[in-house]
Amino acid sequence: MTQGNTTGAAKGPVQLRIPPGEDRERLVCDDCGFINYVNPKIVVGSVVTHQDRFLLCRRAIEPRTGYWTLPAGYMEERETTIEGAMREAWEEARARIEIDALIGIYNIPRISQVQMIYRARLLDTNISAGPESREVGLFTWSEIPWDEIAFPSVHWALGHWRETRDQNGFAPFSEPEQGL
Amino acid sequence: MTQGNTTGAAKGPVQLRIPPGEDRERLVCDDCGFINYVNPKIVVGSVVTHQDRFLLCRRAIEPRTGYWTLPAGYMEERETTIEGAMREAWEEARARIEIDALIGIYNIPRISQVQMIYRARLLDTNISAGPESREVGLFTWSEIPWDEIAFPSVHWALGHWRETRDQNGFAPFSEPEQGL
Repeated sequence: MTQGNTTGAAKGPVQLRIPPGEDRERLVCDDCGFINYVNPKIVVGSVVTHQDRFLLCRRAIEPRTGYWTLPAGYMEERETTIEGAMREAWEEARARIEIDALIGIYNIPRISQVQMIYRARLLDTNISAGPESREVGLFTWSEIPWDEIAFPSVHWALGHWRETRDQNGFAPFSEPEQGL
Repeated sequence: MTQGNTTGAAKGPVQLRIPPGEDRERLVCDDCGFINYVNPKIVVGSVVTHQDRFLLCRRAIEPRTGYWTLPAGYMEERETTIEGAMREAWEEARARIEIDALIGIYNIPRISQVQMIYRARLLDTNISAGPESREVGLFTWSEIPWDEIAFPSVHWALGHWRETRDQNGFAPFSEPEQGL
């Protein structure tokens, strides 16, 4: 889901000020006093497999329209991280999945994101593109369109999936030291 | 840090509407059209030990003023989860710490929080109460004021710390099935 201010005018909580009793600037609305606390957002998603194939979605929306990604998106209120990853698999690929491990927690501080990517199994092969996907597909490792991957974290998650494919009870990987 | 609207009047993005092209209600400001996307917030913190003692902070702020907690708080923009946990240890207990494992990821969907609690070692015993703490202390396991703990997740993290005290490379625990 794309998130942002739909108005072009500089209204709403757009003034940076340090509120009383705080130590850093927050976005404040001069019209009504509303303070817009902005904290990092969680992206939840999964590496979904069926036998030796990986579920990928070709993006129908910005950013990176036309490139391939994992089913993943912003976690919503009043859900758990696992529920969010399951919801995203349904919304983007109409995929019903079962989650069994957390592969990685990828911090991307430049854009204030924390991505939590799970390992999951596709419960049946009735998949189809949701509204944010142009198409969806199941690819063997060598068929994956490596040159048309949408985001670095998709490469990280697929690689970490492969490193831990036969493991259970492992610590989730982090983002690489370089490459943000 | 307490987060909320400081004004009592019903102004700012307080109207629930489904924006065009979306599938769920968001808070919208009728004055300026600002859409306030609200997503779950990440709390980062740590179980900090020095030899056989645990660092706890007695809360000086609501909620649960006067009760004991781990150094933890809302993750801020442009930091990593580990940086956030280190910052909170400094802000609440003037503690310098080294983090070595992720103990738990505790979903609390009722309040749309995801808590990430790390295992950490205190680098020196020069600790003191920060502005949000009434006092700080180092307690052996049996000295911990178990009847005056601020939040259930403090119990979970201390218990999970104990279960994994001699382990490395383990999968982080989740919140208990019951008890939210």
